[in-house]
Amino acid sequence: MNIHEKYILRCIEIAQNGLGYTAPNPMVGAVIVHNEKIIGEGYTSAYGGPHAEVNAINSVGDISVLSKATLYVTLEPCSHHGKTPPCTDLIGKHKIPKVVVGILDPNPLVAGKGIEKLRSAGCEVTTGILKKTCREHHKRFLRFQENKRPYIILKWAQSSDGFLAPDIEERKKTPQPYWISNMYSKQLVHKWRSEEQSILVGTNTVMADNPRLNVRDWTGKNPFRVIIDRTLKIDAEHHVMDKSIGTLILTETKNANKYVKGINYEIMDFSKPLAEQIANILWQYNFTSLLVEGGSKTLQNFIDENLWDEARVFIGKPTIKKGIQAPDISGKSMNVQQIGTDILKTYRND
Amino acid sequence: MNIHEKYILRCIEIAQNGLGYTAPNPMVGAVIVHNEKIIGEGYTSAYGGPHAEVNAINSVGDISVLSKATLYVTLEPCSHHGKTPPCTDLIGKHKIPKVVVGILDPNPLVAGKGIEKLRSAGCEVTTGILKKTCREHHKRFLRFQENKRPYIILKWAQSSDGFLAPDIEERKKTPQPYWISNMYSKQLVHKWRSEEQSILVGTNTVMADNPRLNVRDWTGKNPFRVIIDRTLKIDAEHHVMDKSIGTLILTETKNANKYVKGINYEIMDFSKPLAEQIANILWQYNFTSLLVEGGSKTLQNFIDENLWDEARVFIGKPTIKKGIQAPDISGKSMNVQQIGTDILKTYRND
Repeated sequence: MNIHEKYILRCIEIAQNGLGYTAPNPMVGAVIVHNEKIIGEGYTSAYGGPHAEVNAINSVGDISVLSKATLYVTLEPCSHHGKTPPCTDLIGKHKIPKVVVGILDPNPLVAGKGIEKLRSAGCEVTTGILKKTCREHHKRFLRFQENKRPYIILKWAQSSDGFLAPDIEERKKTPQPYWISNMYSKQLVHKWRSEEQSILVGTNTVMADNPRLNVRDWTGKNPFRVIIDRTLKIDAEHHVMDKSIGTLILTETKNANKYVKGINYEIMDFSKPLAEQIANILWQYNFTSLLVEGGSKTLQNFIDENLWDEARVFIGKPTIKKGIQAPDISGKSMNVQQIGTDILKTYRND
Repeated sequence: MNIHEKYILRCIEIAQNGLGYTAPNPMVGAVIVHNEKIIGEGYTSAYGGPHAEVNAINSVGDISVLSKATLYVTLEPCSHHGKTPPCTDLIGKHKIPKVVVGILDPNPLVAGKGIEKLRSAGCEVTTGILKKTCREHHKRFLRFQENKRPYIILKWAQSSDGFLAPDIEERKKTPQPYWISNMYSKQLVHKWRSEEQSILVGTNTVMADNPRLNVRDWTGKNPFRVIIDRTLKIDAEHHVMDKSIGTLILTETKNANKYVKGINYEIMDFSKPLAEQIANILWQYNFTSLLVEGGSKTLQNFIDENLWDEARVFIGKPTIKKGIQAPDISGKSMNVQQIGTDILKTYRND
C-alpha cells in the first residue's frame, strides 16, 4: 500500500460515521496531511450540514499550515454553488497545494469539473486512488446517481432446511412472528435498518407478522416504511400504519377516500413487473437505498427482475420441513459469517 | 381516600406507561382485586394491541379466583366488536362479579352502554370514582372525542426579561439556535415530544433554528412533524424535510409539482384564523394531542383564538433586552417548578 492509499483508506474509515445520515448526499471522508502527519479530519455531516472538506479544514488547528498540506478526499470536491459555497473555492481560499481524490463525481455532466477548477487554480490534483474501494464505499450514492434507483439490499432468514416460514396453518400454532434467526442476528438487522433510507415489505408479511419496521435494538435513523398493499387490505391497527415514521403505501387503489391521512400513497400497475416500478418511485422519493425484508413474493419480484445489489441471508438452526420456500438466488458469494447459532451469507449481484 | 379511590389511583399509575403509545386509543389502567389484594394489573398496549382489561385478566395467576374478584378500570369497558372481542364479554366470560369504573365513555352514543351490558349480565357496577382525576388522566382522549380536536399544549422558553429570542440582527452574532433554557429543560422537552402525537412550528422557527423536532435526549416515539409553510419557503436541506419521521406541511400552495415526495401537504386558507384550521386538520389525521413549540406568531395564533389547553413556559437565566417578546398568556397557574437554573410555569386554559 502506498502513502496515498493509506490516507484514502483513513478517509473511508471516518466517512463511515455518516452512514445513514448524509443521504441523499454521499458520505465523503477527508483527511489533511502535513509532514506525513494527519492535521485535520472530517466527514459529511447529516443531510443539510457541511461537507467533509469543510469539516476537515475546520478541524485544523493552525490553518496557516494548509498552504503546505495535502487534502485527501474519497470523492471529487463539489464545484457548484449549493447551500454552502463550492468546496473547490474553500480549498483555493486556503491555498491547499495538493489534492488527492479517490473517484470522480458520478454525474457525467459534473465529473472532472471540480478537478479542472482546482487545477486551473494551480492545485496539483491526483485522482483514481483505490477506485474499487471508493466505489464500494459510495455504492449507494453511485447506484442512485448512475442508475436512477436506490441501492437494493435483499434480506431474509431461512431455516436450516431452506424455508422462510411454516405453512399458514402451522404458524397459527406457534407464537407470532415465527423467529428463525437468533437475537444477535435480529439486532444486526436493526443496525441495517438504521443504515438504509427505506425498507420494504409486502402485504402478507404485515398481515402475518405485524412488524414495526423501525430501529429498536440499535441507535439511529428509522428508514422510511414502504408497504405493498394492492387493495388496501392493511387496516389502521397494524403497526406500520401508526405514523410514527414516514410511510408509503404502494397500491392500485386510486380512491383517495380510502387513504389514511399522514400516510403517503403511490399508484402501481400490478399487471406489470413490480420491482422496477418500486425502484422508480423510490428514486422519485430521493431514497438512495432500500432494504427489502420480505416476504417471499416480494423478494422474488426483485430476484426475477434482476433488480438487486446485495442479498443478506441468515440460515438459522430450526428446521421447518413444510412451509414457504426461501427464494433461490444466484449471486456471487461475498462472505460467510457465523453469528452465534446462525450463519449469515452475503451475495452480490455481479 | 376510600378503598375504591385507592385502586383507581393505582389504575392511573400503571396506565401512565401507555402515554404516547396507545393513541388514538385511551391509555386505560385496570387492576383486579381479591381479598383486598391486587391479583392482576394491566394497561392498554401500544395502538393495535390488547386493552387494559385483557392485559389485567391475562396477568392473573389463578383465573378461577376471578369469579370472586373486583375489576377496577379508569374508563368504561368497551362493548363493541373491534379487532378484539368487547371487554364486557371477557368480563362476563370470567364471571367477575364487581366492576368499579372511573368515568364513562365520552362518546354520548356509547356512554353507559358498556355499564348496561355488564349489569344485565348480573355484574355489580360502581361508576364515577375520582372523576376529576380520571378526566385529567384521559385529557387527550377526552378532548379529542368531545371537541373533535387534539389536546393542545403550548411550550416556549423566555428570557428572565420576557423575550423569546434576540432580534434577528443580534442572533446572527450568537450560535444558532440561541438557547434560553438549560440542558435539563431541554431533556424535559424531549420527554414531552415523546408523549404527544404531533408537534408544530412555524416557518420562521425552521428558518432561524433548523430544528429536528424529534426525540433524542429521551427514549420514545417521535411526534408527527407539522410545519406551517405558506409559500413553501423551506427547502429540502432543512432537517424537518429529511423524512426521517412523518411530516405534514400546512400551506396555501396548491401546486403539487412543488411538493416533496414522502412529505404530506394540506391546504389552509391563510386569510382566516389558522389555529382552528390546524386543529381540524390534525383531528382528521387522528392525532389526539399537539405540542406547539413556536415561534411567537404561531403560539400567538393559538392564544388569540383561545384554542389551547396547557401552556408550559420556561423562564431562563439570560436577559435579552431587545428582541421578540414572549407571548402574553392568561391562564390558571397550575404549577411552578425549579429546573436547575430555570423556572417552569404551567398554565391551564380554564
